[in-house]
Amino acid sequence: MKFIILVRDGLGDRPNAKNKTPLEAAKTPNIDAMAREGINGIMDVISPGIRPGSDTAHLSILGYNPYTDYIGRGPLEALGADIALKEGDIALRTNFATIDNRTNRIIDRRAGRIKGPLKELEKALNGIKLPVDFTFHHTIDHRGALVLKGKNLSAKVSDSDPHELDAQINKIRALDGSKEAKETAKILNTFTEKARKVLREHPLNEKRKKQGEPPANGILMRGAGAYREIMPFEKKFGIRGSCIAATALVKGVAKHLGLDVISVPGATGDENTDIKGKFDFALKSLETRDFCLINIKATDNFSHDGDFDGKVEMIGRIDKQIQTLSKIAKKDIVLALLGDHTTPVDYKNHAGDPVPICILGPTVRKDEVKNFGERSCANGNLHRLRGNDLVPIMMNLSGLAELFGG
Amino acid sequence: MKFIILVRDGLGDRPNAKNKTPLEAAKTPNIDAMAREGINGIMDVISPGIRPGSDTAHLSILGYNPYTDYIGRGPLEALGADIALKEGDIALRTNFATIDNRTNRIIDRRAGRIKGPLKELEKALNGIKLPVDFTFHHTIDHRGALVLKGKNLSAKVSDSDPHELDAQINKIRALDGSKEAKETAKILNTFTEKARKVLREHPLNEKRKKQGEPPANGILMRGAGAYREIMPFEKKFGIRGSCIAATALVKGVAKHLGLDVISVPGATGDENTDIKGKFDFALKSLETRDFCLINIKATDNFSHDGDFDGKVEMIGRIDKQIQTLSKIAKKDIVLALLGDHTTPVDYKNHAGDPVPICILGPTVRKDEVKNFGERSCANGNLHRLRGNDLVPIMMNLSGLAELFGG
Repeated sequence: MKFIILVRDGLGDRPNAKNKTPLEAAKTPNIDAMAREGINGIMDVISPGIRPGSDTAHLSILGYNPYTDYIGRGPLEALGADIALKEGDIALRTNFATIDNRTNRIIDRRAGRIKGPLKELEKALNGIKLPVDFTFHHTIDHRGALVLKGKNLSAKVSDSDPHELDAQINKIRALDGSKEAKETAKILNTFTEKARKVLREHPLNEKRKKQGEPPANGILMRGAGAYREIMPFEKKFGIRGSCIAATALVKGVAKHLGLDVISVPGATGDENTDIKGKFDFALKSLETRDFCLINIKATDNFSHDGDFDGKVEMIGRIDKQIQTLSKIAKKDIVLALLGDHTTPVDYKNHAGDPVPICILGPTVRKDEVKNFGERSCANGNLHRLRGNDLVPIMMNLSGLAELFGG
Repeated sequence: MKFIILVRDGLGDRPNAKNKTPLEAAKTPNIDAMAREGINGIMDVISPGIRPGSDTAHLSILGYNPYTDYIGRGPLEALGADIALKEGDIALRTNFATIDNRTNRIIDRRAGRIKGPLKELEKALNGIKLPVDFTFHHTIDHRGALVLKGKNLSAKVSDSDPHELDAQINKIRALDGSKEAKETAKILNTFTEKARKVLREHPLNEKRKKQGEPPANGILMRGAGAYREIMPFEKKFGIRGSCIAATALVKGVAKHLGLDVISVPGATGDENTDIKGKFDFALKSLETRDFCLINIKATDNFSHDGDFDGKVEMIGRIDKQIQTLSKIAKKDIVLALLGDHTTPVDYKNHAGDPVPICILGPTVRKDEVKNFGERSCANGNLHRLRGNDLVPIMMNLSGLAELFGG
């Protein structure tokens, strides 16, 4: 047998004033039927109370230890955007932002969610002179990556992105006392200054200003990390898998582990994503692989926007398509439904509360849980798992696990 | 107080088409009464999803870490068969098998479950010339052990036993790049070849052929391991224990940890084993020791044979004898009932699903569980434990645990 892990991003939540979480408020007849046929529980994706990022959450769910195996957001997001990295490269995630040149304060952290192609800006930024080799990559919309190459560099540096409006761009600082971190911070601050000059004078920004659009006249950086190889999933677990996700960060984690990242037309990462398309491609991918992890991002987006009703509706929309998977899980595959972390709509950010999980398939000892939710699943026979338990459990239920001992 | 751990081997299972596991289908009035008087839960013997062997399972239940403390099936099974080993000895479990001399294919992996004594075959095999010292030991029926002695050897070698019929004996390979592993593989392959010649020409096999019995004309090897001492149980936990088991592998684990292995007349390891005899000897053993682990193997045998009804009947047979223990557990001892792993009858092999557990005794906080089964126990107040938790829990409930701290 083979298996599918379906991650609805940021799925877990907390009760509202009416004592309902979005999952509890949503109409989900199909997923509730799966809970009744399956075995259910809750899961601390990293460990109790720890607030996972999307990257550390997926690492953990895929059986890796985020405390030793996480290389940082910068390099993972770069990998997810198909930027090739070499051992030791320092990568940072960047945003084009709009800065008020008089006050030096950030007016828009995403430069009006500027649309590409932005090859001209990329080229101009790559013309900057720095004391090390580097490449700047525009990826999509306001997003990009800066990659520093060379020796005597360190990823132990802070973000320049203050993560709020009306603040100035932060000076990047060394996070340890090393010469390498101090030197890297200095280089990145130089890049930030030179980028402002290059961008301010760029014709594309002149044009944007004339059209009343916020100029992309500053670069914010965050998530510095040094790229390094880790043990590939296939070597660690002896099985081959793929990943279907729209988010660069999740795709980057999958690439780092050596999973095949499958592109699905119409998989947008937002509420209009082609859910059925993702499910169909996942099933197709199992023809030549042992498992597929599918990530549906939009549930998390609604949480970050504080939109309870939007999250409820999105959960219902996924429920309508789920039978593509659930009818096959009854006999031919093992299917896990879970969230990668809790993102309470009231909190608008990732929280460390456990996520609900249901596992369905012909080998499970189904339990008495009647519907899928944070609190109903907590009564199930899986009890309280860790993210790291998931791959071994799925391999065991699929008959793919090796015996340990004699 | 003292305690008993009763392991019914391969007890855990998965539901059949009628949604019943063998435990759920069996009539077990006495064990159900124990669940009502006890505290119940489920246990990941190693960790969730990991498929334990009988050896790694018992190591874990006895409070050891199988990832660091497991020396391999070969040396443990040799210890269990009373073969003395020295630090660094390489031991492999062997089978007498029947090989078709024309095609070199295995006709019977157990040479018709040949009965001993086979001193003549043992002697002939020990006459083989190899570049290292070795001893071949016949143990019982088709089973034996080969022990290589000397320096510059390694246990990182593959099995020659292909674990299936109609295949040829596998060439043993080095499992790492070391010179020692390559040399050991070469020696073992030489032994395999020479053993075939010695056995083919042996009068005992001529006689077997004349009698229409499959000759023991080949040796299959598996589970290579290097013997080393580990911290004895008594030193690790400060208490003294014994083990009652028929299986050489389980006896070997117990010996390795320094437990007293107690032989019980009529304890056969099959369905006709003297259950009451084992229980009586266990109680007797507590007169001079703090605990006893009893293993009843037959439940696992029925699972390996895919025999649902046989497993159900065996569970019922144990239930009829259990009062020997349970009536004492109500006041004088703490008793744990569990499986060492799940062996689903449909899967015919060990699986990584948790096992049910009940702990009974005057010190337990009894819960609301009404009967003993995989799913009923999952609702108990022990929740979901790990195998490694068991010894500390039993020592605590028996009043044998040291205070940690002030």
